[in-house]
Amino acid sequence: MTGLTAIGLVRSDIAAPADAPRQGRLRQGLAHIELDQQWAGGLEGLEPGRWVWVLWRFITSEPPRLRVHPRGDPDRPATGLFNTRAPVRPNPIALTLARIEALDGGRLTVSGLEAADGTEVLDLKPYFAELDAPAQEGS
Amino acid sequence: MTGLTAIGLVRSDIAAPADAPRQGRLRQGLAHIELDQQWAGGLEGLEPGRWVWVLWRFITSEPPRLRVHPRGDPDRPATGLFNTRAPVRPNPIALTLARIEALDGGRLTVSGLEAADGTEVLDLKPYFAELDAPAQEGS
Repeated sequence: MTGLTAIGLVRSDIAAPADAPRQGRLRQGLAHIELDQQWAGGLEGLEPGRWVWVLWRFITSEPPRLRVHPRGDPDRPATGLFNTRAPVRPNPIALTLARIEALDGGRLTVSGLEAADGTEVLDLKPYFAELDAPAQEGS
Repeated sequence: MTGLTAIGLVRSDIAAPADAPRQGRLRQGLAHIELDQQWAGGLEGLEPGRWVWVLWRFITSEPPRLRVHPRGDPDRPATGLFNTRAPVRPNPIALTLARIEALDGGRLTVSGLEAADGTEVLDLKPYFAELDAPAQEGS
C-alpha cells in the first residue's frame, strides 16, 4: 500500500467541500495552488493559457456505495459509482481540468478548480489533446 | 496518509511496463480491466462506446526528479516534471482515456490503455466533454 503525498494546497474562497459546486466548469472564479517549495521546480515549462489536470484529494469519511445519484441529486436516477464523478470512491482522487491564469514561482493561479480551501493537491499533469480527447469515430 | 486501493487489475498482452508505449493513443490493441467482484456493481450505466478515465498505478522504485525528458527521450529538452506525463511522480497515479469496447459483468474490454499486464487499477471515471475538454477562448 502506497500512501498519497500532498505536493501542495489549494487556496480558494470556497471555504469547505460542501460549498463547492458539483461540477468544475460551473466554477467561474479563480483559485490558487501553492506547491510545496520542494516541488516548485517541477512547474518549469508550464505557462498561462495552458490547461492542466489537477489531481486532488477528496475528503470524506463515508464508505463508497456502488450506486449513487449523479451530482448528489436524488431526482437523478441512481447509477453505478464508476459512471459518476461522485466524491466518495475507493480511492479519494478527484480530477479537474483547470486553466493556468498566472504562474509565480511555486504558486499557480487557475480557473475551473472547484476544490475547497486547504485541499491537498496530489499531482499536476499537462493536458494534451492527442491523449485526452476521445478519438473521432473511424479515426 | 491514505493508502491506494486496487479496484481491479489490467489484463493485457503488454507484459511489462518497459514494453508499453509512452503514449496511450499509440496503443492500438485491446486490454481488459478485471474489477474485483466487490466493485463490479459500480459499472452500472457504462456501455460500449463510452469513454472512461482509467486511473492506474505506476510501478517504479525511482525517486521523482523535478526535470525530465518528455517521453523518456534524451533528445527532447528536459522540462518540469509537471509539464510532462512522466511515470516517476510524487504520487504514482497514471491517467489514461480509454474507450469501452465491451462490458461483461466486472470485466471491461477497452482500447487505448497502455498499462502492462497486472497493473493495479485505482479508479474509473466517466468522460464528460463539458468537464474534460478545454473551454474555447471567449466562452
